[in-house]
Amino acid sequence: MTEVCIENPERIEVQVDAEKYSESLPLENFIKPGQKSRSALIILNQKITMTSLFRPIWNSYQVKVCADGGANRLFEFFEDNEIERESYLPDYIIGDLDSLKDEVHQYYNSKGVIIIKQTTQYSTDFTKTVNLLSLHFHHKKFNEIIAKSKKTNHGIELESGIHDLYHEMISMNSNKIYSTINLLALGGIGGRFDQSIHSMTQFYNLSRTDPYYKLAYLTDTDLIIFIPAGGILVTYSPTFRDSCIGNCGLLPVGKATSLIETKGFKWDVENWETSIESGRVSSSNRFTGIDKCYINAKDGIVLNIEIFKKN
Amino acid sequence: MTEVCIENPERIEVQVDAEKYSESLPLENFIKPGQKSRSALIILNQKITMTSLFRPIWNSYQVKVCADGGANRLFEFFEDNEIERESYLPDYIIGDLDSLKDEVHQYYNSKGVIIIKQTTQYSTDFTKTVNLLSLHFHHKKFNEIIAKSKKTNHGIELESGIHDLYHEMISMNSNKIYSTINLLALGGIGGRFDQSIHSMTQFYNLSRTDPYYKLAYLTDTDLIIFIPAGGILVTYSPTFRDSCIGNCGLLPVGKATSLIETKGFKWDVENWETSIESGRVSSSNRFTGIDKCYINAKDGIVLNIEIFKKN
Repeated sequence: MTEVCIENPERIEVQVDAEKYSESLPLENFIKPGQKSRSALIILNQKITMTSLFRPIWNSYQVKVCADGGANRLFEFFEDNEIERESYLPDYIIGDLDSLKDEVHQYYNSKGVIIIKQTTQYSTDFTKTVNLLSLHFHHKKFNEIIAKSKKTNHGIELESGIHDLYHEMISMNSNKIYSTINLLALGGIGGRFDQSIHSMTQFYNLSRTDPYYKLAYLTDTDLIIFIPAGGILVTYSPTFRDSCIGNCGLLPVGKATSLIETKGFKWDVENWETSIESGRVSSSNRFTGIDKCYINAKDGIVLNIEIFKKN
Repeated sequence: MTEVCIENPERIEVQVDAEKYSESLPLENFIKPGQKSRSALIILNQKITMTSLFRPIWNSYQVKVCADGGANRLFEFFEDNEIERESYLPDYIIGDLDSLKDEVHQYYNSKGVIIIKQTTQYSTDFTKTVNLLSLHFHHKKFNEIIAKSKKTNHGIELESGIHDLYHEMISMNSNKIYSTINLLALGGIGGRFDQSIHSMTQFYNLSRTDPYYKLAYLTDTDLIIFIPAGGILVTYSPTFRDSCIGNCGLLPVGKATSLIETKGFKWDVENWETSIESGRVSSSNRFTGIDKCYINAKDGIVLNIEIFKKN
């Protein structure tokens, strides 16, 4: 098949027939999910550097979880503002708790935050967190289980109780289709490089094990999302495009793949083989579609979008 | 072949027979190359956040190049310290110069820095920089060419003169083995995510086109290097290990591969399939070898090493 790469004007009208895509992803939803949809914010163990934007993002999410040392970062974010710190309490803290500072542990414990210790070294804090969130949203009796005495780790077996409950739930409802959960992670990208790459593996892991998650990472510069294989429409308001979006990249981090067709990028391609090893990666690209762009990739691919925000 | 994964004590003696490795990579050389070896520092367009370490690193490298807007970052690093700014002049600035601020352009021009405009959009500032460095170190007459009037872009054709000279040199010396150049890049990782991934493609590109480069990226947290396919020994002083090295990861960012054998990590493996798509990635690992570790990967793989430094 002929490889095509064309350069578009800065703004173009994008039209895509309905049968060409299986899913439409409204971009703004990744940072501001609607009140009706299930949503969770994960704070990972990396300094929170955004300032004014942090509070509105926090308030847009139904459930907030600190992954282990992420709780230190939340605590430290408010510096000596005790009143504000008390207004931004997470729902859960989970992890092996090795990174959690005593002072922070005691503080959130005294405020009634549910702190769950899970000592297994065979899963990461991120996986512990998403399993917990699956239970929170999809296990009818989880709130009853968790309400038990906090002295006994809220009734959760210390090593891997959350994983065990999660696997039990999944196996009992193997055919169930779970409703979507919008998941935004702060702090997964831009710190230690092996952790950034580990964050990338989560896109692929979740797309296999828990495809009901719509996961995004927000960094100081970017929003990073996963585009599943096949035709996908990414939609946004023209205002958001014009005022908040900069460059972007379509990144085959999981494996070499082929961009069967893109529409609405500065450089659109067809039948374009892409891989990090070959050096053929669509980076420093940008959206030209006025209100949408279209991606049809042979395999799932990562899309990063530079977001201009008042930090 | 049987897959093996073992957990080691925190410090172990590593012995590797000489026939099992083709190359030994002294880790400290990546940030402090010897005075005798050819070396270059590249400053990319990202804020320079290290403070006290910047100056000794600068002084360890023979040649310094700012890739386009990287010159703004160097200029801004010294704030209002004019005397220091004048002591840290790069040898070259290269790029399409779209990002270079007028004030910065004029300043470095007035100080005699060689500023080369290359307008082609078919290569990145990084590629322009490494082609320039290949000419600088390996083209006997490049210094004579470049000495010409700066009014005419130092005699370099404006669109892609550097690439043309580079390709000419390579084709005229197709069998020549060029001597090693230690190349440290500041600012390639941790900014916009598509740029970080683009930096990863450079490891694979250079290993094909210019294998005489030993490229490393230094971030606020990590040193990131490329481990070629086959047996490779990474060596370091026990003091450096104990005082400066934290966690590490063996990252198959280019493609899925297999770790045939590792020695001297906390978690050592044999015949271990690894890929980002599968989620099987050796992250949050660490060196346990007292003065060396050994990696034998089927394909080239990226190694990040957390470096503790006084910023």
